[in-house]
Amino acid sequence: MTLGELAVRHGCELRGDPDSVVDRVATLAAAEAGSVGFLANPVYRSRLAATKATAVILRAAEAADCPVAALLTTDPYAVYARVATDLHPAPPLRPGVHPAAVLGAATRVPASCQVGPGAVFGDGVSLGERVAIGAHVTIGDGVEIGADTRIFAGAVLYAGVRVGRRCIIHSGSVIGADGFGFARDRDGRQIKVPQIGGVLIGDDVEIGACTTIDRGAIGDTVIADGVKLDNQIQVGHNTRIGAHTVIAGQAGISGSTTIGARCTIGGKAAIAGHLVIADDVVIGGGTSVPGSIPVAGIYAGGGTPADTLQRWRKNMVRFGQLDEIARRLRAVEKRLKQDS
Amino acid sequence: MTLGELAVRHGCELRGDPDSVVDRVATLAAAEAGSVGFLANPVYRSRLAATKATAVILRAAEAADCPVAALLTTDPYAVYARVATDLHPAPPLRPGVHPAAVLGAATRVPASCQVGPGAVFGDGVSLGERVAIGAHVTIGDGVEIGADTRIFAGAVLYAGVRVGRRCIIHSGSVIGADGFGFARDRDGRQIKVPQIGGVLIGDDVEIGACTTIDRGAIGDTVIADGVKLDNQIQVGHNTRIGAHTVIAGQAGISGSTTIGARCTIGGKAAIAGHLVIADDVVIGGGTSVPGSIPVAGIYAGGGTPADTLQRWRKNMVRFGQLDEIARRLRAVEKRLKQDS
Amino acid sequence: MTLGELAVRHGCELRGDPDSVVDRVATLAAAEAGSVGFLANPVYRSRLAATKATAVILRAAEAADCPVAALLTTDPYAVYARVATDLHPAPPLRPGVHPAAVLGAATRVPASCQVGPGAVFGDGVSLGERVAIGAHVTIGDGVEIGADTRIFAGAVLYAGVRVGRRCIIHSGSVIGADGFGFARDRDGRQIKVPQIGGVLIGDDVEIGACTTIDRGAIGDTVIADGVKLDNQIQVGHNTRIGAHTVIAGQAGISGSTTIGARCTIGGKAAIAGHLVIADDVVIGGGTSVPGSIPVAGIYAGGGTPADTLQRWRKNMVRFGQLDEIARRLRAVEKRLKQDS
Repeated sequence: MTLGELAVRHGCELRGDPDSVVDRVATLAAAEAGSVGFLANPVYRSRLAATKATAVILRAAEAADCPVAALLTTDPYAVYARVATDLHPAPPLRPGVHPAAVLGAATRVPASCQVGPGAVFGDGVSLGERVAIGAHVTIGDGVEIGADTRIFAGAVLYAGVRVGRRCIIHSGSVIGADGFGFARDRDGRQIKVPQIGGVLIGDDVEIGACTTIDRGAIGDTVIADGVKLDNQIQVGHNTRIGAHTVIAGQAGISGSTTIGARCTIGGKAAIAGHLVIADDVVIGGGTSVPGSIPVAGIYAGGGTPADTLQRWRKNMVRFGQLDEIARRLRAVEKRLKQDS
Repeated sequence: MTLGELAVRHGCELRGDPDSVVDRVATLAAAEAGSVGFLANPVYRSRLAATKATAVILRAAEAADCPVAALLTTDPYAVYARVATDLHPAPPLRPGVHPAAVLGAATRVPASCQVGPGAVFGDGVSLGERVAIGAHVTIGDGVEIGADTRIFAGAVLYAGVRVGRRCIIHSGSVIGADGFGFARDRDGRQIKVPQIGGVLIGDDVEIGACTTIDRGAIGDTVIADGVKLDNQIQVGHNTRIGAHTVIAGQAGISGSTTIGARCTIGGKAAIAGHLVIADDVVIGGGTSVPGSIPVAGIYAGGGTPADTLQRWRKNMVRFGQLDEIARRLRAVEKRLKQDS
Repeated sequence: MTLGELAVRHGCELRGDPDSVVDRVATLAAAEAGSVGFLANPVYRSRLAATKATAVILRAAEAADCPVAALLTTDPYAVYARVATDLHPAPPLRPGVHPAAVLGAATRVPASCQVGPGAVFGDGVSLGERVAIGAHVTIGDGVEIGADTRIFAGAVLYAGVRVGRRCIIHSGSVIGADGFGFARDRDGRQIKVPQIGGVLIGDDVEIGACTTIDRGAIGDTVIADGVKLDNQIQVGHNTRIGAHTVIAGQAGISGSTTIGARCTIGGKAAIAGHLVIADDVVIGGGTSVPGSIPVAGIYAGGGTPADTLQRWRKNMVRFGQLDEIARRLRAVEKRLKQDS
């Protein structure tokens, strides 16, 4: 594509030759002719001078330092994401059902879909147009999958799971396994509580590798539109995650918790069950969340229960001084004893 | 089923028409005619008045508030679990070996078993009656699986694993991969220590999705009868988990640790290696357990090492005041300096 | 093998009959005639007297207590690892491609390789000699795998992943799924940032079960020679892990972090993104690492941010006294108020 095309398509001001052709993105340091770089994080500003990129996406304030063509925008990272998608589109579908796939009764696969070898569909599965199903994906009875969704090799969707349009589900993820529900009997044994709900996943959801989303005990576990889940996240039964919320790797959400829209939850965060987290909450990595968070804001814990970011940072500095604090207190007590 | 049948079967006192028919369970709020609700957690008592359930399982003390038929019991959640199992039984087996399954030499599959497409058995595998093996399950040489066990799509059992009767193993779980054993050589390289033990799993064990249980280094890793493991749990080599212990998601148990019977271990708890945890220990979510726990009780840490629940709660409140405590100590020191 | 052969092969001094034959390893307690035990951890010294092993690998200082033949070495655990490998070698390959495997175009499988049922290869995959691919392993387009590498059932390698020689990848692991890269748009929606880098894995790397290593956003995620990763580890995009580093289960490394060579990282440790960790750093289990560690040493946090092991231990003792410290401070303040 030409720089002129990219500038028009993404609403950038172009400083440079609109007919210059680019065919890939690259970091400022690794870029060669034909590639587009970007400068979103000011930390990397020093790399601008030596870049060999054909053009760089950046803010107007940094244009003066740019030795090559510049695509100016107020939001370089978002424009970079879009330009990278233009230049590196997902590989085109190869429509057709591989002969080594196994389809159940009353399962409809539109001709526009790609179904890989070893994919196994139960009965009554429904697929939208242009769905891509990787090798060995297993799809239970009655599952519904919306148009343009892609599911990578080896993912498992249990019976009754419903997935929206334009979703991406990575390998190793398991959607709709039984929630963890047991009643302890008088003799100490556990009685399994049947998990008869389902999982409802909206449009434009991405689910990383080896992430598990349990089916509801009664009623559904719900992942709303635009949610992005990283790898190895555990979502308990009957949890609800609001639209456009983003959760990083190895976080765990216990059952029956409701998380608001547009939240950002850090890696390894642990959210207890039966809580309500407001919209637009940011929770730092590793934070333990034992209670509901009714007000938007930034909360952190880094291994301890959530607090406001500011308070937690101060307390954590003091934690590093704790032995010293205890010694100083002992000295004060000794002094007072001598005085009395 | 009729309410009369349920009352007799589960030892409840029935207040209402024994001939009323129910065919499903539901929450008090979502229940419609034909469904059975339950009230186990007093938090939901206010929902009783408006329920449209045909009957509700609850304690006698709450019967007066129940606007519909009541099944009275001292343990409503356990009775609910049993009634839900009556009304929502697991789907019946469809016996037979799918033609796309691959069986090794000297592998015996009873006619009562269901083996899904793409299931792969090694040599000398032994299955009990009515075992259900999902699509793409891989079972190594010499594995033994007891009657009525169900293994869901894509789970992997390495060679030599033995599983008892009536177990459930969910998708993505890996049983019997090598334990993490290496000896560092003088030049800094790691030498692999062969992991030649196995994994022994008792009866009535449930294993969630993407949980990993490593084979023993020498001798077996042992999961006793009735243990329930949630999703994404890591169990190290030669660990032993006692009967009817329940462990929530993303917990990790390092190697060679012995956990007692009837313990309850919260999500993301981290238990170090070579420890001994007594019977009937409760460990809170996120707790780090660096040492053995010889006495039954409730221990918590929420991201910090285990302490008794009461002490930990008090210390955690103080942690939230730590910056203030340090400032107050500084003020005291200043005052004493002025005085002297 | 005879004790004489083992002594020569591994440079041990033998006390005992060089013609004694052994065929397996065992713990001191479980050993029977024909087995070799070892004493590496002094904790088990008391078990030496009663052992029924034919020979024991131990240090010269402990030889006097050994009632049977002794193989003397300064490093019993490393010699044990080697002897166990001699006596319990990995099962021999059964070369050949199973008829239920699916090979893409221009994919070359040397005759010395073993490819299991249901393995699926994309186009242009390249395998070295004696590679073993388990059942249902899925290998994307253009993947390269070095000689003598073994990949267990159900692992997934996305397109463009390169794996060195003599590696072991366990079941359920996913290598090369998209990194977690999104740019938040002005309306709160997330725009996916294409993940166009790859994953480069060196020689002699072992990767446990259900571990995920994301492909680079731009440029590769790199795992150097000799790295050992346990189960359920998450490695973010563009992370680099140095040679012979060992990481225990459920640890998480965020994106673009560089970890040095010969590090040891404990289970459930959490390392933030864009950091640099020096060579020869030891990080305790559960430690949160929010900043770079430029100096070799032992760091611990056990649920709190990393500190030197000594300081952290002292502070953690004080954490357990925190409520008491706060009460004592209150008493001091009261006393000073009375005095004034």
